[in-house]
Amino acid sequence: MSIDHGSAPTLEKVAELAGVSRSTVSRVVNASPRVKPEVIRAVNDAIQKLGYVPNRAARTLASRRTQAIALVIPENTARFFADPFFASVIQGVAFRLAQTDYTLTLLIAAEGDPGKTRRYLQGGNVDGMLVLSHHNDDASYVDLAGRLPVVFGGRPMSRESENVHVVDVDNIDAASRATRHLIERGRTRIAHITGRRDMAAGIDRLTGWRRALDEAGLPAELVEDGDFTPEGGAAAMRRLLDRGEPIDAVFAASDQMAFGALNLLRERGMRVPDDVAVIGFDNNSYAISSRPELTTVEQPSIEFGTAMAEALVRLIDGEEVDTLTLLPTRLVQRAST
Amino acid sequence: MSIDHGSAPTLEKVAELAGVSRSTVSRVVNASPRVKPEVIRAVNDAIQKLGYVPNRAARTLASRRTQAIALVIPENTARFFADPFFASVIQGVAFRLAQTDYTLTLLIAAEGDPGKTRRYLQGGNVDGMLVLSHHNDDASYVDLAGRLPVVFGGRPMSRESENVHVVDVDNIDAASRATRHLIERGRTRIAHITGRRDMAAGIDRLTGWRRALDEAGLPAELVEDGDFTPEGGAAAMRRLLDRGEPIDAVFAASDQMAFGALNLLRERGMRVPDDVAVIGFDNNSYAISSRPELTTVEQPSIEFGTAMAEALVRLIDGEEVDTLTLLPTRLVQRAST
Repeated sequence: MSIDHGSAPTLEKVAELAGVSRSTVSRVVNASPRVKPEVIRAVNDAIQKLGYVPNRAARTLASRRTQAIALVIPENTARFFADPFFASVIQGVAFRLAQTDYTLTLLIAAEGDPGKTRRYLQGGNVDGMLVLSHHNDDASYVDLAGRLPVVFGGRPMSRESENVHVVDVDNIDAASRATRHLIERGRTRIAHITGRRDMAAGIDRLTGWRRALDEAGLPAELVEDGDFTPEGGAAAMRRLLDRGEPIDAVFAASDQMAFGALNLLRERGMRVPDDVAVIGFDNNSYAISSRPELTTVEQPSIEFGTAMAEALVRLIDGEEVDTLTLLPTRLVQRAST
Repeated sequence: MSIDHGSAPTLEKVAELAGVSRSTVSRVVNASPRVKPEVIRAVNDAIQKLGYVPNRAARTLASRRTQAIALVIPENTARFFADPFFASVIQGVAFRLAQTDYTLTLLIAAEGDPGKTRRYLQGGNVDGMLVLSHHNDDASYVDLAGRLPVVFGGRPMSRESENVHVVDVDNIDAASRATRHLIERGRTRIAHITGRRDMAAGIDRLTGWRRALDEAGLPAELVEDGDFTPEGGAAAMRRLLDRGEPIDAVFAASDQMAFGALNLLRERGMRVPDDVAVIGFDNNSYAISSRPELTTVEQPSIEFGTAMAEALVRLIDGEEVDTLTLLPTRLVQRAST
């Protein structure tokens, strides 16, 4: 496939039309910091008018810039589409990057060979990467943080992660608050359906539940593992009930699991919240489509994406960025408690 | 951010460990055709053992290969996540590319500046592109077909599209079959809820419905526009009923719209299929979660993705590929007719 380069507009023509120097066009094209917004606009207008396309490969060698950012999600396609959290975070990322010249490329990484994804990321194809939904066995993405700018959504689990940049919520505090809400409602037999234990969000929410019960002098024994899905939540709820011990409340580490738990409780003829109060985590579409509607801990998922993109853009520009950006959570009270 | 290249393993070391020549390693790395599978395996093993990363930018200049394929979806994030068709097609694409060295990057293109996406695609960042869910006003992607290998999922609408490569189903034939199924059930007042009229799938299914009614000598007047979403389907159903004319069947151009139409019919106290029979299109999760379950036309959406990836990989390799790959559809009969 041959591509005609002969008649292509040049950097010089763009500079002439925009009324700026050749090097200014180059700085805009390479997204250098400290170019005035009105200059960026003038150059981009000229680029668009002329249909100028910088030769990306040559430019990459010269400037080490690709103008692409990867969002890596180490999940398979089915899971990626099933969890509303991803949709919201991506919306937030896209919203922030729309104000830049970066193209967002999504890599749904668990479908193929992880070595291939890693080679792509290391191979100079992107200026930086965002990693969402990091698991214990995805440690290789943490190594990459030494080789290109990386921002994680949610704390990664591996040891080498002290110097990486993270956007997160305080999952321990948020889970404690959810559990205290149940205690304040007079519940004393409070169970927990955990998230995935190979992810920090799963482990930290378990810790927060335990902490609140300890502080109140209540037993922290009613716990079953879930996996953040409705099916996992229903299965964990079944195991909790099959223990034959009294349960008057459940804190599930995601709205999807709370949704599954509610369905199972209904099947078993138990009333929510009269017999068992249920609280979830996220405040997504599952929280408002369940019956009764779910009390839950809201995490600001669109802002999660915006904050990740913001941190990465600044890292690429060589700015100082805090290693941890913590976003606020809040309790949303509905009919299930 | 400085990257240490000093100790990096070289092409020579890979060749030595794999027991092949330097040029063979280069051919494997660049995915040249006609390298034996066992040689590819040996070289890839050596690459993995040594942690060798080809310098992508230099390689791109030399070979014009990036080993990346873009899947472009000209929709916004909300729509992208709401339609199960995308999830299935992506699964199919990922499945086929897992057997290659190509990395799949997703571009959800309607969120940002279309010029940015176009510059990324033209700028030598990918070896080829797949375009799904093409609309009338996305004509620019068709132009790109002259500049790099492109395969469309679904026929693009623009005039310049005669020489592009397309994977599709015969939407006219499939819609006719759906409509004939309703006629065979004795229905005579058969309405249609269209898909988006700026997409070939929307227009062709309307044509198929009209053709089947014409052939049977039945009126083809009961038609309202939808947009492939449940909300659009419900709104179109409401407009159809509000005409005050008798309706005994509806063909909706997607399962989501049929799902919305069923909800609206239930609200109005009408029984399905006794009062109104309903048939959808796709055979996705909406078809089996609606009550009653939907009769529908199945299109093989995972195979859609696999076929698109197959055609593109062969195009990039310089092989002859048919400009049209037609996949079969079939009628799946359930309780709604």
